[in-house]
Amino acid sequence: MKASVIGASGYGGIELIRLLSNHPDFELQAIYSSSKENVPVTEDYPHLAEICPLPLTKIDPVAIKETSDVVFLAVPSGIATELAPQLAGGHAKVVDLSGDLRLKETDDYKKWYKKEPADRAFIADAVYGLTEWNRENVKTAKVLSNPGCFPTAALLGLAPVVKNNLIDMKNIVIDAKSGVSGAGRGLSPLVHFAEMNDNFRIYKVNEHQHIPEIEQQLAWWNKDTAPITFSTHLLPVSRGIMATMYAPLTSAMTTEEVYALYVETYKNDPFVRVRPSKQFPGIKEVAGSNFCDISVDVDTRTNRLVIVSVIDNLVKGAAGQAIQNANLMFNFDEASGLKGFPMYP
Amino acid sequence: MKASVIGASGYGGIELIRLLSNHPDFELQAIYSSSKENVPVTEDYPHLAEICPLPLTKIDPVAIKETSDVVFLAVPSGIATELAPQLAGGHAKVVDLSGDLRLKETDDYKKWYKKEPADRAFIADAVYGLTEWNRENVKTAKVLSNPGCFPTAALLGLAPVVKNNLIDMKNIVIDAKSGVSGAGRGLSPLVHFAEMNDNFRIYKVNEHQHIPEIEQQLAWWNKDTAPITFSTHLLPVSRGIMATMYAPLTSAMTTEEVYALYVETYKNDPFVRVRPSKQFPGIKEVAGSNFCDISVDVDTRTNRLVIVSVIDNLVKGAAGQAIQNANLMFNFDEASGLKGFPMYP
Amino acid sequence: MKASVIGASGYGGIELIRLLSNHPDFELQAIYSSSKENVPVTEDYPHLAEICPLPLTKIDPVAIKETSDVVFLAVPSGIATELAPQLAGGHAKVVDLSGDLRLKETDDYKKWYKKEPADRAFIADAVYGLTEWNRENVKTAKVLSNPGCFPTAALLGLAPVVKNNLIDMKNIVIDAKSGVSGAGRGLSPLVHFAEMNDNFRIYKVNEHQHIPEIEQQLAWWNKDTAPITFSTHLLPVSRGIMATMYAPLTSAMTTEEVYALYVETYKNDPFVRVRPSKQFPGIKEVAGSNFCDISVDVDTRTNRLVIVSVIDNLVKGAAGQAIQNANLMFNFDEASGLKGFPMYP
Amino acid sequence: MKASVIGASGYGGIELIRLLSNHPDFELQAIYSSSKENVPVTEDYPHLAEICPLPLTKIDPVAIKETSDVVFLAVPSGIATELAPQLAGGHAKVVDLSGDLRLKETDDYKKWYKKEPADRAFIADAVYGLTEWNRENVKTAKVLSNPGCFPTAALLGLAPVVKNNLIDMKNIVIDAKSGVSGAGRGLSPLVHFAEMNDNFRIYKVNEHQHIPEIEQQLAWWNKDTAPITFSTHLLPVSRGIMATMYAPLTSAMTTEEVYALYVETYKNDPFVRVRPSKQFPGIKEVAGSNFCDISVDVDTRTNRLVIVSVIDNLVKGAAGQAIQNANLMFNFDEASGLKGFPMYP
Repeated sequence: MKASVIGASGYGGIELIRLLSNHPDFELQAIYSSSKENVPVTEDYPHLAEICPLPLTKIDPVAIKETSDVVFLAVPSGIATELAPQLAGGHAKVVDLSGDLRLKETDDYKKWYKKEPADRAFIADAVYGLTEWNRENVKTAKVLSNPGCFPTAALLGLAPVVKNNLIDMKNIVIDAKSGVSGAGRGLSPLVHFAEMNDNFRIYKVNEHQHIPEIEQQLAWWNKDTAPITFSTHLLPVSRGIMATMYAPLTSAMTTEEVYALYVETYKNDPFVRVRPSKQFPGIKEVAGSNFCDISVDVDTRTNRLVIVSVIDNLVKGAAGQAIQNANLMFNFDEASGLKGFPMYP
Repeated sequence: MKASVIGASGYGGIELIRLLSNHPDFELQAIYSSSKENVPVTEDYPHLAEICPLPLTKIDPVAIKETSDVVFLAVPSGIATELAPQLAGGHAKVVDLSGDLRLKETDDYKKWYKKEPADRAFIADAVYGLTEWNRENVKTAKVLSNPGCFPTAALLGLAPVVKNNLIDMKNIVIDAKSGVSGAGRGLSPLVHFAEMNDNFRIYKVNEHQHIPEIEQQLAWWNKDTAPITFSTHLLPVSRGIMATMYAPLTSAMTTEEVYALYVETYKNDPFVRVRPSKQFPGIKEVAGSNFCDISVDVDTRTNRLVIVSVIDNLVKGAAGQAIQNANLMFNFDEASGLKGFPMYP
Repeated sequence: MKASVIGASGYGGIELIRLLSNHPDFELQAIYSSSKENVPVTEDYPHLAEICPLPLTKIDPVAIKETSDVVFLAVPSGIATELAPQLAGGHAKVVDLSGDLRLKETDDYKKWYKKEPADRAFIADAVYGLTEWNRENVKTAKVLSNPGCFPTAALLGLAPVVKNNLIDMKNIVIDAKSGVSGAGRGLSPLVHFAEMNDNFRIYKVNEHQHIPEIEQQLAWWNKDTAPITFSTHLLPVSRGIMATMYAPLTSAMTTEEVYALYVETYKNDPFVRVRPSKQFPGIKEVAGSNFCDISVDVDTRTNRLVIVSVIDNLVKGAAGQAIQNANLMFNFDEASGLKGFPMYP
Repeated sequence: MKASVIGASGYGGIELIRLLSNHPDFELQAIYSSSKENVPVTEDYPHLAEICPLPLTKIDPVAIKETSDVVFLAVPSGIATELAPQLAGGHAKVVDLSGDLRLKETDDYKKWYKKEPADRAFIADAVYGLTEWNRENVKTAKVLSNPGCFPTAALLGLAPVVKNNLIDMKNIVIDAKSGVSGAGRGLSPLVHFAEMNDNFRIYKVNEHQHIPEIEQQLAWWNKDTAPITFSTHLLPVSRGIMATMYAPLTSAMTTEEVYALYVETYKNDPFVRVRPSKQFPGIKEVAGSNFCDISVDVDTRTNRLVIVSVIDNLVKGAAGQAIQNANLMFNFDEASGLKGFPMYP
């Protein structure tokens, strides 16, 4: 199957190139960029020398949709709103990694993204690809909206207790931390090396655009869903997200009971690993891989549940989950092309 | 005034040496260690070459108390239980940086530290030196118990709203992150460079020994104090703590109102800086200094308050606050010897 | 083909597990350790949870040689001296990643490693596996001695000009820098996170055991070989080596001429990439991959050649080259199992 | 004495603010910037909140020279060429941290800086402030040219053997490594966090503008001076330079003999620390301080001397040495305001 990547000069695009180039079932045939044209991708990314001969090409939606079986859209929010409808409706299936097709309520998009939303009906038809929880719809999707990095980590961690109504939905606190590749390749003093090195910052407190995305999925799972509190921090690392989540249990449970629920829930999911009690994951333990590792611990003094969820933001939080979804859309093995181990140390 | 440091081969001790050596009112006259004897401190710490000629000396409490005006105890928990009583009661004032004299309830000490506590009456007499909130008692202290690093960051951040009864005391969540110098100089796979580099870990979830210390102070401030939820993470940085704290407001307030309260509260405190709205501090902005920088933000959707507090764990979280307290104990300017700027970048 | 790894609890062993587990032609069947027995490898390396079910097993050379087609020895120097002869001579081929079989002159081994050498004849029969330069011998090797990490980077960089007699062999200076995974998993203050973070150190100046290994290969290539000057530095990164090398040209050449020689030399080598003029490689551009990237630049003012060579010390400098050699020993595609892209950023 | 800083929004300017604010003899009275006007310096540098009330002010040379006793120029190269002459000639002494007044041969400036030089006579009168080697001239300087960061590290390391004619001046190789603050605060993909983190790069091979500065001073010391080979690397750290230097000894010497020469040479210099044999300095051991730490080691196999020299590029390599020079220019204690210890860890 022929795959194209649009937005190939960003980190999400580059990670798609890494993963698709060694995918047994997809052939990466072309890469596109709005900022560069007819230059080898190796100009900006010399680590691809001699292994990725593709040039960055101008985006021509008509040509792309005709020549591709699947198009991965790794463009900034706002651009997919334009491009996705042009790419859809023909032969090619579309996997959009931006935030443009995630929020079914277009008013939410306007409010949190501060941009004009895509067509409401088009968004309604896009399948939200939190793979582990939406496999049947993903399999038949023509347009797939790939989840955000923070929502992926948070939702996989919260799902078992939210769906089983075991936590107080009005008191969920998510304290999230991300490596700086999540901020993209755009230059900014915030991620200037000398300033971020040996540093740690908090940003977008109570105003991150991933908040409505998390709440939307929570509401699909649980009718008592209420606004969450969500904050995001920048770690002085290249990759990785940890979401530390806190919520009161609605009735007393032991760590072992919660752990057993998580193990049972994810027993057939190749990319979710539930860690034994007190063996909390570090972000490096999933680096470069499509794994989401989860630990749970009950604070018996407060009857509050602590959930820790880690992913590589560029893999399970972006390119990896996109390919996992595409695998399902084409009826391939869900793990095809995603079997690389974490790179440790 | 003659100052001695016991436990000078650890990071807390080394930081005391750095700060005391340039202190205008204290003279660092001797340094002691239980693990090294009659070797120059420069053997393990060559950065002190030619500027700290003192050898590490065997700990002899009788001699130390006779020759010192103030003794800083920077030994591991469990050791101060033995040493502090031997050093106290004479001419010298004692500033203990360990956790041994902090918990007035000796049962709490046993439970959380898993060690035998010091004499209950001796602990009762030790003054808990959260400087900004206990100045009058600090001034007359003979034995001072210096707060832990996490409690310092957390308590300075929580104080204004806890004392004014503005948050739901039953729903405080503290998500704390620390640089690895907080783990000391002891070798461990956890802080082996190749494993901690580009990594981020969570540890001691719901079981950190700083929990009862925080709750003790909260209870002194507010009778509705209940167990908190507190988790700690390791950052891939050398120094710095950020405590991100969450609690529901008991009634609706704006960020501006909370901010105004904090500014008013700390207006005369030389080492607490309240940051303007949306200008959250990064840990590097206090590195090497005795500052605690605080931001507040109200999540209007949930009426939950987010408080961000950062310190340098070795300065305001250890050696700096110890000297700040000693300054008061000897009636010096509170900021004496602590006026160095943060080192940035 | 059945592969076993001995020394699987070290970083070299873990990297072999990562690469062999996704190798199409080798099946990793057992892993061995002298320090751990009958514990899952995931105990120390939780990143392998659910993907490497193998336990660490006690080393039994007789059983290993009978059940394996190839044995990778990733043990510390001194241990392979004992083990390699016990493993060799039967059905299994042996790939030794230690320094024990590299130096043909056993006196050199004694002098630089300060240990007793293996049997001289046994060492003589071991093939030195600098793959690009010894393919024919590698193909028929029964016992292969895998090059050291620094020698790999240095020798691939020096080969074209040394073999063609273009530099003054009496004036070669190699300034090498390595990530700390090269120092292994053994705990040491040198690589304690708080001390190595934001730091950079030089070590083993003029006394590194890789010096005679480099000189031995240079002498095989060029009869004018003389002692080199070689120094090693520790970078605050997990992986990667850069060797910056300096030598006077014996006659005037332009950068372009030297570059052309390198391109021609390595045109058929899948893992050596010669970078265009002034596009020097960074170590991250080969991270996780088996590439060696090389740049050259002539200092026209001094007629001195500067050669820059980078590898991932755990891949091309250890496990990757070992597999590259094993591929040849079993007549597989030289790049089999090694086609993963560098992980960037 | 009233001090002003021009270029206060760059890292050199910020470091001057840090050091001058706690200087007992200088009063920092005003700070100037070409890019910002009438904004508090805390806008870009919130670590200065409440401790540096000064606004960034528009540069008005006439006013500055009238109101200042000393002006520190921390502007990019090319700007000092304009400003320094306007500031000089009146009451105020000028300390220029740029490269504009360092090269006495204006053709060298043109060639290496690719800009128009300042007036030749004006440059001739500027005193080159490599403090340890030019104290008498510094004391009477009206316009002082502060050395570059790399030249400071390299020259202090080379001086004893160059002045005593002990090394082959035609074969000096300097392999220099710098933290990224040396690249300034200007944004660039090269120092974007996600790309520089866990990375190491080489840059400006054989073309760094500090080459002629080093050679100029070497020639003042030794008539046999010839072109050097000099390369520069970027370390993933915020601060620090290590220069590893190699040169053949002209006659056989032991490490001990060379060491003794260095100890004797620098015995009265408060900021140069010669490290005992085999105790090589790491860059963190001088971080935040004005020290230059030096080690020497003779490679007996090649009779080549290895010299290791480390500094903090922003202190001894910029702001610290500038203040050290200003201290001499005003007849203060040379170490005034510079007695802060290295910050370790």
